[in-house]
Amino acid sequence: MFGLPDDPGAVTLATWLIDYLGVAAFAASGALVASRKEMDLVGFTLLAVVTGIGGGTLRDLLIGVPVFWIARPDYLLICFVMALAAFFTAHLVASRYKVLLWCDAAGLALFAVIGAETALLAGTGPFVALVMGMVTATFGGVIRDVLGAEEPVILSREIYATAALAGAGGFVLLDALGLPRDAALIAALIIGFAIRGLAITRGWSLPRYRPRPGRDPADIP
Amino acid sequence: MFGLPDDPGAVTLATWLIDYLGVAAFAASGALVASRKEMDLVGFTLLAVVTGIGGGTLRDLLIGVPVFWIARPDYLLICFVMALAAFFTAHLVASRYKVLLWCDAAGLALFAVIGAETALLAGTGPFVALVMGMVTATFGGVIRDVLGAEEPVILSREIYATAALAGAGGFVLLDALGLPRDAALIAALIIGFAIRGLAITRGWSLPRYRPRPGRDPADIP
Amino acid sequence: MFGLPDDPGAVTLATWLIDYLGVAAFAASGALVASRKEMDLVGFTLLAVVTGIGGGTLRDLLIGVPVFWIARPDYLLICFVMALAAFFTAHLVASRYKVLLWCDAAGLALFAVIGAETALLAGTGPFVALVMGMVTATFGGVIRDVLGAEEPVILSREIYATAALAGAGGFVLLDALGLPRDAALIAALIIGFAIRGLAITRGWSLPRYRPRPGRDPADIP
Repeated sequence: MFGLPDDPGAVTLATWLIDYLGVAAFAASGALVASRKEMDLVGFTLLAVVTGIGGGTLRDLLIGVPVFWIARPDYLLICFVMALAAFFTAHLVASRYKVLLWCDAAGLALFAVIGAETALLAGTGPFVALVMGMVTATFGGVIRDVLGAEEPVILSREIYATAALAGAGGFVLLDALGLPRDAALIAALIIGFAIRGLAITRGWSLPRYRPRPGRDPADIP
Repeated sequence: MFGLPDDPGAVTLATWLIDYLGVAAFAASGALVASRKEMDLVGFTLLAVVTGIGGGTLRDLLIGVPVFWIARPDYLLICFVMALAAFFTAHLVASRYKVLLWCDAAGLALFAVIGAETALLAGTGPFVALVMGMVTATFGGVIRDVLGAEEPVILSREIYATAALAGAGGFVLLDALGLPRDAALIAALIIGFAIRGLAITRGWSLPRYRPRPGRDPADIP
Repeated sequence: MFGLPDDPGAVTLATWLIDYLGVAAFAASGALVASRKEMDLVGFTLLAVVTGIGGGTLRDLLIGVPVFWIARPDYLLICFVMALAAFFTAHLVASRYKVLLWCDAAGLALFAVIGAETALLAGTGPFVALVMGMVTATFGGVIRDVLGAEEPVILSREIYATAALAGAGGFVLLDALGLPRDAALIAALIIGFAIRGLAITRGWSLPRYRPRPGRDPADIP
């Protein structure tokens, strides 16, 4: 039931390991939201699962391919293990928040690139592939925040979705320029990870919309 | 347009009746949230529909089979009728909350088992079937609470998703052990319903996560 | 990559233009919510996209046809442009709220009719087609409000979903009566647009549910 991917030729072992690490990091971030809300183990598991596999699930539904984890229960298992671990150790992880943040950055970059590639392989155009990379990397976190009744981080914090966009865009561009798949993947990974990493270490953020003087927010629906 | 299921051999009449009862109970719970928020009839209908058929819809999308109610408008009709009834009688139902709670428990148990079976019949493995049973039984309520701007009950209350998990797990296990389908279904139904029933009558709940002394929640993202 | 629809025979040029206008109006309403929340450009884009194409996406997933914008990136492009425009000009649009409201009304009516027709063409019955028309017209706004942490307008404001229901219902009925497609479409558009327009100009709303004296809301789950 569990085991290596069916098609190890399509993803290198390194990619496959980081893929698992990404799911685990996202699942852990979901479980940490559950710990903030003082939920029970079922709540931990639900938030870990939707955060870990939600983005890829939406991507697969939109482009019309079978949902990736239906035939690969190992992804669910990773989420379950992370939820269980977090339930009993979240108080320890608090001091290891930096580790989590960097795992999450690795997951974000890899999911963006894998998401864009999955879309291209399914026959979409480059523009849709770009959006699918962003969806894969960020939507799990969106669902996590909606279910946990927090404001979606994608909507309000430092550079996050933008890093996913850069990683996915880098892959689509380099792929269109004819670079070999592995080179394009590695370069795009570095782009996405570097932008997110600089956002973490330097607190980068995009400018927010600011209402102009004389505009009354109450007038806007 | 309306009428008996296309394939009465696959579900016994009893199952079919409880299936309708389950949709009706879930739809009523959605309409009751609408009454708390003092919505109009459209709000009642929307919450009744998403609660009544949302879980099964997500299951069908994930496992890649046609959404069950697209070819069976009777399910929609049940939700519409419950919304209409609740709009004019919600003040009476208030005193009949216990009735609703037990209908919901019956629906939860049956949807968990039917959901697991639907997944197995679509060719998923047992672990995914387990998750699909839980999804079918609980996700309608999750969407109801998100749309109604309430904290999802699945994340915070007494034993609920756990009962669905037990029912779905019971069916998957008994089915794998080679029991006839009807016997496995009835036994799993009893397991799920009994656990939820005991949770209702005895207030059972799972232990919540509690922050340890010395941990500052503000440190956690 | 961009250009005219693949099948201009199925939709007249007028319908096609209003279709774009509807997406643009819905995208703008999403971007305006982002401006109220003072989000960055990524937030503007996300809310514009989910509002502009969310309803049609859900419709296509439910009836089991390919999601309409996967092969038509021009729809995404419209949403991106509206997000960008709103980010730099939202303070001006404030005084043009009426224009937006009427574009939105046109989009609502057209999406309701197109949604119902798409469902009928995919082989659903009339009752499901009616619901699909309403879903197409309203669900983008529901997702916008959930992500923007506002109470879904569909649940609480003046006549909105009801206008979509009337437009979709008009098309399904006239189509069933054997009217030519173009005549049924135009008549249904007028019905939906007129009802929404009267709701805007006269403040029409449906009666809300009101708790009866002696009922304690705390008793209701």
